[in-house]
Amino acid sequence: MAGLQDIGLSATINLLSAIAFLVAFAILRLQPINDRVYFPKWYLKGIRGSPTHSGALVSKFVNLDARTYIKFLNWMPAALRMPEPELSDHAGLDSAVYIRIYLLGLKIFVPITLLAFSILVPVNWTGDTLEHVKDLVFSDIDKLSISNIPSGSKRFWAHVVMAYVFTGWTWYALYKEYKTIATMRLQFLASANRRPDQFTVLVRNVPPDPDESVSEHVEHFFCVNHPDHYLMHQVVCNANNLAKLVAKKKSLQNWLTYYHNKNERNPSTKSTTKTGFCGLWGTRVDAVDYYTSEIEKLSKEEEAERVRVLSDPKAIVPAAFVSFKSRWGAALCAQTQQSSNPTIWLTEWAPEPRDIYWNNLSIPYVELTIRRLLMAIGLFFLTFCFMIPIAFVQSLANIEGIEKVLPFLKPIIETKFMKSLIQGFLPGIALKIFLILLPTILMTMSTVEGFTSLSSLERRSAGKYHLFILVNVFLGSIITGTALQQLKSFLNKPPTEIPRIVGESIPMKATFFITYIMVDGWAGIAAEILRLVPLVMFHLKNTFLVKTDQDRDDAMDPGSLGFATSEPRIQFYFLLGFVYAVVTPILLPFIIVFFAFAYLVFRHQIINVYDQKYESGASFWPDVHRRLIIGLVISQLLLLGLLSTKKAEDSTPFLVALPILTIWFHRFCKGRFESAFVKFPLQDAMVKDTLERATEPNLNLRLYLQDAYIHPVFKGGELDRPRVIDEEENSPLVPTKRTSNKGSSRYGSDVSSEAGFQTNI
Amino acid sequence: MAGLQDIGLSATINLLSAIAFLVAFAILRLQPINDRVYFPKWYLKGIRGSPTHSGALVSKFVNLDARTYIKFLNWMPAALRMPEPELSDHAGLDSAVYIRIYLLGLKIFVPITLLAFSILVPVNWTGDTLEHVKDLVFSDIDKLSISNIPSGSKRFWAHVVMAYVFTGWTWYALYKEYKTIATMRLQFLASANRRPDQFTVLVRNVPPDPDESVSEHVEHFFCVNHPDHYLMHQVVCNANNLAKLVAKKKSLQNWLTYYHNKNERNPSTKSTTKTGFCGLWGTRVDAVDYYTSEIEKLSKEEEAERVRVLSDPKAIVPAAFVSFKSRWGAALCAQTQQSSNPTIWLTEWAPEPRDIYWNNLSIPYVELTIRRLLMAIGLFFLTFCFMIPIAFVQSLANIEGIEKVLPFLKPIIETKFMKSLIQGFLPGIALKIFLILLPTILMTMSTVEGFTSLSSLERRSAGKYHLFILVNVFLGSIITGTALQQLKSFLNKPPTEIPRIVGESIPMKATFFITYIMVDGWAGIAAEILRLVPLVMFHLKNTFLVKTDQDRDDAMDPGSLGFATSEPRIQFYFLLGFVYAVVTPILLPFIIVFFAFAYLVFRHQIINVYDQKYESGASFWPDVHRRLIIGLVISQLLLLGLLSTKKAEDSTPFLVALPILTIWFHRFCKGRFESAFVKFPLQDAMVKDTLERATEPNLNLRLYLQDAYIHPVFKGGELDRPRVIDEEENSPLVPTKRTSNKGSSRYGSDVSSEAGFQTNI
Repeated sequence: MAGLQDIGLSATINLLSAIAFLVAFAILRLQPINDRVYFPKWYLKGIRGSPTHSGALVSKFVNLDARTYIKFLNWMPAALRMPEPELSDHAGLDSAVYIRIYLLGLKIFVPITLLAFSILVPVNWTGDTLEHVKDLVFSDIDKLSISNIPSGSKRFWAHVVMAYVFTGWTWYALYKEYKTIATMRLQFLASANRRPDQFTVLVRNVPPDPDESVSEHVEHFFCVNHPDHYLMHQVVCNANNLAKLVAKKKSLQNWLTYYHNKNERNPSTKSTTKTGFCGLWGTRVDAVDYYTSEIEKLSKEEEAERVRVLSDPKAIVPAAFVSFKSRWGAALCAQTQQSSNPTIWLTEWAPEPRDIYWNNLSIPYVELTIRRLLMAIGLFFLTFCFMIPIAFVQSLANIEGIEKVLPFLKPIIETKFMKSLIQGFLPGIALKIFLILLPTILMTMSTVEGFTSLSSLERRSAGKYHLFILVNVFLGSIITGTALQQLKSFLNKPPTEIPRIVGESIPMKATFFITYIMVDGWAGIAAEILRLVPLVMFHLKNTFLVKTDQDRDDAMDPGSLGFATSEPRIQFYFLLGFVYAVVTPILLPFIIVFFAFAYLVFRHQIINVYDQKYESGASFWPDVHRRLIIGLVISQLLLLGLLSTKKAEDSTPFLVALPILTIWFHRFCKGRFESAFVKFPLQDAMVKDTLERATEPNLNLRLYLQDAYIHPVFKGGELDRPRVIDEEENSPLVPTKRTSNKGSSRYGSDVSSEAGFQTNI
Repeated sequence: MAGLQDIGLSATINLLSAIAFLVAFAILRLQPINDRVYFPKWYLKGIRGSPTHSGALVSKFVNLDARTYIKFLNWMPAALRMPEPELSDHAGLDSAVYIRIYLLGLKIFVPITLLAFSILVPVNWTGDTLEHVKDLVFSDIDKLSISNIPSGSKRFWAHVVMAYVFTGWTWYALYKEYKTIATMRLQFLASANRRPDQFTVLVRNVPPDPDESVSEHVEHFFCVNHPDHYLMHQVVCNANNLAKLVAKKKSLQNWLTYYHNKNERNPSTKSTTKTGFCGLWGTRVDAVDYYTSEIEKLSKEEEAERVRVLSDPKAIVPAAFVSFKSRWGAALCAQTQQSSNPTIWLTEWAPEPRDIYWNNLSIPYVELTIRRLLMAIGLFFLTFCFMIPIAFVQSLANIEGIEKVLPFLKPIIETKFMKSLIQGFLPGIALKIFLILLPTILMTMSTVEGFTSLSSLERRSAGKYHLFILVNVFLGSIITGTALQQLKSFLNKPPTEIPRIVGESIPMKATFFITYIMVDGWAGIAAEILRLVPLVMFHLKNTFLVKTDQDRDDAMDPGSLGFATSEPRIQFYFLLGFVYAVVTPILLPFIIVFFAFAYLVFRHQIINVYDQKYESGASFWPDVHRRLIIGLVISQLLLLGLLSTKKAEDSTPFLVALPILTIWFHRFCKGRFESAFVKFPLQDAMVKDTLERATEPNLNLRLYLQDAYIHPVFKGGELDRPRVIDEEENSPLVPTKRTSNKGSSRYGSDVSSEAGFQTNI
């Protein structure tokens, strides 16, 4: 068991690596050449431009102003300076609420840590059990934990009472946070500018009609059943094939540009390529000519497909976006059942145009339920049996296996260095590759389940990932053996025994988790801010592909928060905090450092870097809240299990009420707030309608909505940022207090004056 | 263990007692004097009147026509003759669908029985295990059960395959039934006459407003937010106190009538009463004078209270019935969220006026969630610990206890007869009293939970009762010991062990359950048709209280189906059928007899006797379906547990998929049909609105709805049958194919010609 010294050493190493990352970041971000990697958001907003002033060539790429290097940690206060309302304007409500999760971690755990250190640590320290047991190896950390209390001691009352106090405080913090975020969401919806999704409802499972096309059928149905509110509709085309062609053409165009650039630099030698797969074999031809002709061919194909999709009735999917004359009409249609058969004419609030996942709009009801069943079974096996295929791959990927399949490699493999490399790394690599692929696998499973918006896909994937982490990281670290073995042993043990077994080994794993927090939490977050992969990718693209400013904009990869993978990871830290708050309070400060540091880093990132693909108005919060409650209940059950092994019969039964009350609290909050994230109240819709009618009596809504819900391939290739967003920014319903440019530059200027290149050049 | 002979004996006894009940019923129902006990429904419908023709006095009370006695089982075909659409017209959709549960039992179990007897019984019979084990006591029944198959035999494949076949058939039957009943409900709603609840929404939790009364606040809110659809509203008064006064006055009036009648019969002696509690002590006064003055006093009090309720703003509850101009407007308001705070302005479809539970209309959200938490905990303790207080009462109610408390009874108690009576009966009586009170306790718990309609109260109580039966009757019979002991032992055993333990003892309990079915199912149902308690009560009332025909109508107690207690009991038979279908198929015929007999009896009862208090349009079916699925899953888990003790390793794992698929099937059905029972589709509302507008363009809806949702005490004491029902029958929207009287008498005449008194007198 690691003692305080070992922990201290590990902390030093991780702190040093974190600081190394931060220093690297501080230097790299000041170089103008990296500006688009570390401040892409400002470019996308159109506030920051490439340095165009003439000057020393070198200062265009390297920052020579020594003064700026001195204040290399200046980004930290800068990141904190933007107030929250501006932040949610600037980065979107999703991002602003997302970083509040870290803040919530601080709000919950700072008071808990103070209390635990002032009450539980002294109680544990003076427990004196471990010192009297002779042969036991123990460390200073264990002396601070509940292990130091003798069995059957009255001191456990302190832990029981503190469990109640911590739970109560967590409830309070969670309730307040849920309330705040519900208010923020409602304000966001109320103050939002006019957006197409406010007026539009997604109608799925339009029943087939022998006499009418889908479009006519939709129009007739809504004209009859919503006579006063129906405005227009937009059918959905199955343009998946077309989208593929467009993507392929874009990739070919990239190659064409690459060879153009190459030729320009070396006008003497004409570049050539081969016609086969990836240019690896086939006849050698002139590259520029080849790609030009290929693109021409593809353009024709694309045109034909485009015509086919637009004219062929079979390309029309039985789904439509139906728009109404008022938000009120849309709100009521989205919330009501249209037909007596609840599997046809399904209406739901339309996602934002850029949030739609187009491929999933036309899945019939029966298929959908079968898909969900299969994916549920798949998730079960993925969670509990994922080690089986990996072990299989690992058993193949040993030296004998490779020598058998590829005998010509034998001489190379047999060298000592390669042998140890293969034996040491290959098994680990198989697991690592799986873990890297896991989010993609989960996302694919969610798409198969048939959700219609990117935001719901991410939410579902996050749920799956959370389960995976809970079983394989949390339980897997506490109890040795694979998840499948655990499941088997759990099924063969009484239900009251499980919390006992897990709870008993909880205190012993504290040091392991402290190390985990430092490696994954501290150093991992510091690596996040450095953005190594986008940095390399950008410079590669910049060198080979970029010709115009537009190309350079395209070469930027601002990335996004990645809710599906990062939120379950935060939940894991919450879980650790809840579990160890009573058991081993010494773990808490490490978690607090993680939350504080991550809050800082991600606040910086969402201000300067990330560009969210969609805006869901914080609709993920009910999921976050639910998972926090799950963590809380798990921690309570484990504490119950732990104390039941300590013979504290008089105090333990008082803990039984905790999980019950927590689940009740969850139901209470759910009833109180959840509908704010699911439904749109009619009152609010009416207020906005009335206001709009008063301010813009002559608004032509039909024109405004005409192209809003067209498949992105029909919008001239602007796949990522459809026109709607610009419209929205250019014509706000109510003028905002500040214009977008002025206000943003207030914060932008902090950054740029720091970077110092605009004044220098 | 009981053999076939014992079962045969028990069957004979129970069949004889059932036949005795039926003969008694056949004789009693032919007596004109009992006509109102056995045919009250026809009186309430106004089709049948008291015999008014002059004739021999005796034939007014006793049926002397011998011919009618010969055909004493004629009611059975008569009960089956009415076709289902007429039945649902005559008795309401609730009743018509309710007896379909019995029919569903037949549909599921008749094919299963045939299959089981042709395949499983031969397989079991030739298993030959039991005969070779020397010392084992076994019976013929066990030879037909799965116990006769040797461990590890290949024959278990037959059971596994049959489990799949039975489950598949059950799914098919359940799916078809759910579909049929959803269609029936939608047709019922579509063809229903104009009813106030179609236009009305119940609004609860109206927020307090400092400047406006509840009524003004409601009016303003809906005028603003539903400008095109809002018609009017009706506030809810807290008239619970007034209702108590009215009920008290009615009881006093009954006494007054009683003494009037007494005086008329014996004009010589004036009746007297005492003024104290129940007329047991106090000063002796003239009874008629006393009750006349008491009623006068109460009338004044009632009048004052009536004025107070109508004028005092504090008597207004923050809830209202809001009516709309069209069904469409009401449907959308009921299904949408009004305010951004989801705990105020709660809207739901208004129950029928007679279905409303008035006391629960004004519970705030926080109080509601706390009440539900408390009731959930209460239900848990009631289910698992109900034996504790009863054991306490039983320990008090022994002879020594009584002698201690009431020493003067000692000589009586010490006699041998009394001693054995007390020792034998008292402990049983405590339990019996509890079981009789149980439905009332559960109903009280449901009212505390705050549901607003009688139908939802009954549905909730049924759910609670189902849990109680499952734990205490089913598990309690299989495993000895109280529920609490079971719970404790289950918590200390691995989850896979529980189905094994229960499953293992399943075959041994077959004979017990066969006896149970005969006693509770066969004889119990036969007792139901005799209606002993209402018979006695009616004759008591008829002798002492009845003066006018109206009084005689009031003296009738038609009763109703009692969904809250009878439905969970049917579920118990389904559960037994599912569990024993594979294990001991010999039990199945007994269940089939129960379902067939019960179907017959209850069909007779709903045609001739029961008068439902409300009509919910079969909205209980999702609950019935869910509980059937629970039974199916339990049976599958128990079979899995049973087979896992039989060392059939190759066949058992195939059963694991069954419960998963069954749960998936449930989710599928839920998504497919449930909303038909919860929501009202806009399309159907629009069709009905359009039709009505075409047929009755000048309808004054405001007048029609004016008094619909007034508290029943303001309707002149017609507590049970508010005026609305009559209106509805007198002015159908679309003329029905047959007039109410003509058609009913078609079936009524069968009954009456049988009874033969109208022709005889």
